[in-house]
Amino acid sequence: MHPFTDNPADSVAALGERRLIAAIARWLGDTGPAAPAGIGDDCAVLPRPRHRALVTVDPVIYGEHFDDAVAPSAAGAKLLKRNLSDIAAMGGTPRAAVLALALDRTVRTDWLRAFYRGLAAVARRHAVKIVGGDIAHQKGGLAATLTLFGEAAPGDRVLTRAGARRGDWIYVTGRLGGSLPSRHHWRFTPRLAEGRWLAARPEVRAMMDLSDGLAKDIHALAPAGCTAAVEPDAIPRRRGHDLRAALTDGEDYELLFALAARADRAAFAAAWKRAFPRTPLACIGRFVPDDKLPTTALRWEDHDGFEHLR
Amino acid sequence: MHPFTDNPADSVAALGERRLIAAIARWLGDTGPAAPAGIGDDCAVLPRPRHRALVTVDPVIYGEHFDDAVAPSAAGAKLLKRNLSDIAAMGGTPRAAVLALALDRTVRTDWLRAFYRGLAAVARRHAVKIVGGDIAHQKGGLAATLTLFGEAAPGDRVLTRAGARRGDWIYVTGRLGGSLPSRHHWRFTPRLAEGRWLAARPEVRAMMDLSDGLAKDIHALAPAGCTAAVEPDAIPRRRGHDLRAALTDGEDYELLFALAARADRAAFAAAWKRAFPRTPLACIGRFVPDDKLPTTALRWEDHDGFEHLR
Repeated sequence: MHPFTDNPADSVAALGERRLIAAIARWLGDTGPAAPAGIGDDCAVLPRPRHRALVTVDPVIYGEHFDDAVAPSAAGAKLLKRNLSDIAAMGGTPRAAVLALALDRTVRTDWLRAFYRGLAAVARRHAVKIVGGDIAHQKGGLAATLTLFGEAAPGDRVLTRAGARRGDWIYVTGRLGGSLPSRHHWRFTPRLAEGRWLAARPEVRAMMDLSDGLAKDIHALAPAGCTAAVEPDAIPRRRGHDLRAALTDGEDYELLFALAARADRAAFAAAWKRAFPRTPLACIGRFVPDDKLPTTALRWEDHDGFEHLR
Repeated sequence: MHPFTDNPADSVAALGERRLIAAIARWLGDTGPAAPAGIGDDCAVLPRPRHRALVTVDPVIYGEHFDDAVAPSAAGAKLLKRNLSDIAAMGGTPRAAVLALALDRTVRTDWLRAFYRGLAAVARRHAVKIVGGDIAHQKGGLAATLTLFGEAAPGDRVLTRAGARRGDWIYVTGRLGGSLPSRHHWRFTPRLAEGRWLAARPEVRAMMDLSDGLAKDIHALAPAGCTAAVEPDAIPRRRGHDLRAALTDGEDYELLFALAARADRAAFAAAWKRAFPRTPLACIGRFVPDDKLPTTALRWEDHDGFEHLR
């Protein structure tokens, strides 16, 4: 659906700000509580979390992340899911979000309704409340920016990107590559349950989610002085997509993590299989000193991930 | 400064995403901590707050909130200050923020540097940390969306917009009107100290900040079945600006609150004067039943505040 309309009666301007906010609260339903816990005051008031708080922010922007060919409900769902994937990457539990909308006055009310309903369906599935937001005019624009709050797992442990050591094993969930042609980037389920499970395993030392492509992202997990030694054949690829796609397409929304060098990998794999029989898990290599990279290993410098500003 | 450049070498695209993030961390200095407490991981990890959490979000958008005539440092400062005003309105203390940037690849690096430095100066003054964010491309656009987290005051009390009762007195800080021509909307200091002080006074029952103009905003504070009975002369006006300006210009960033009908107003005013000798405080009226509005009182329906979507 084209988000803009030439017919003023169909636009958000016809509704006006006050009625639009009321409509948004309706579209969100039970995922959009009223003030003070939600929409309708200067701030939303959230209960004191039991553990450390996690915060992440990501937008979807017309012409960049979605276009006329995309169902508005899919755009709304993805906005929340890409943020959920960041909470999953720390092993956390999502709790609440605020959404800032920047939009032209000619945006269709129908477009927005479907967008918020798509967002609310995902929010409901993950028990996330949309507790507030903002509406601002942006001439010719349509962008939604969602800030998501979560909590660390019980035990207050979070898995950061730092923590991997020399010799640690490198694992990845799911299959990589071809996210756009396969529509995986619309349909994926954020790896929240897997992330929480991993944060509870002391032998898991570091974690991140894959959004810009393995070739770009993996460097963030490597300990100082180390490189990821990965044999090309070890990388789980989406059916019909080649190695290059698996390395650089991006938008995989899978978890990449480091397992302690001395961990019992067989026991770990068996426990994973019991917990997540339907989520593929692959050990793709290990972190080795920069000067010990096997000649058969991938040369990361030959591959680029997604660059947001070119 | 015009935020866009025809010279690719001066643009953020020349820097690229990775170096831009490093530059932003530099520009933020001590207000931009590193991961896990700040920039550089999938989420920022925040310490568990001692009280209930407050969340608010507001953007600044090129062509809407600022233009070529505005110093980028002023735009950055205002982005944080308008969010701080929302925390002040609940009587809270600001703690941390995340900033999502949507920008064309031709945005000048120099513009962004000044923008972030202006933001950092305000963050430093209020002990706010910029703990994360996002950078996304938006063709032709430049928008920054800041989500601010705070904490309720000691005692865990927050002042919401609900809570005023029939007969309660209506107070406003500062002077209203002419925010744009006087440049108050760039120069204001968010009423954080005043907000916290008010949240600690049990006789203060409800509060909000004034951003869309008193005539629009005051309805949010009125108890059901009541109207604000305000004599026109009681409204503190900025020098050189008329009643209409004071009612409808918006961007006042002053506090509007309700004081219990039976409160000792003289003692309250004296305590205020000791605490904030330089912040004007005016009692502008009280909430009365809809059918008891004095004939001399303002007719709110004759005045409109700022409408964001027209």
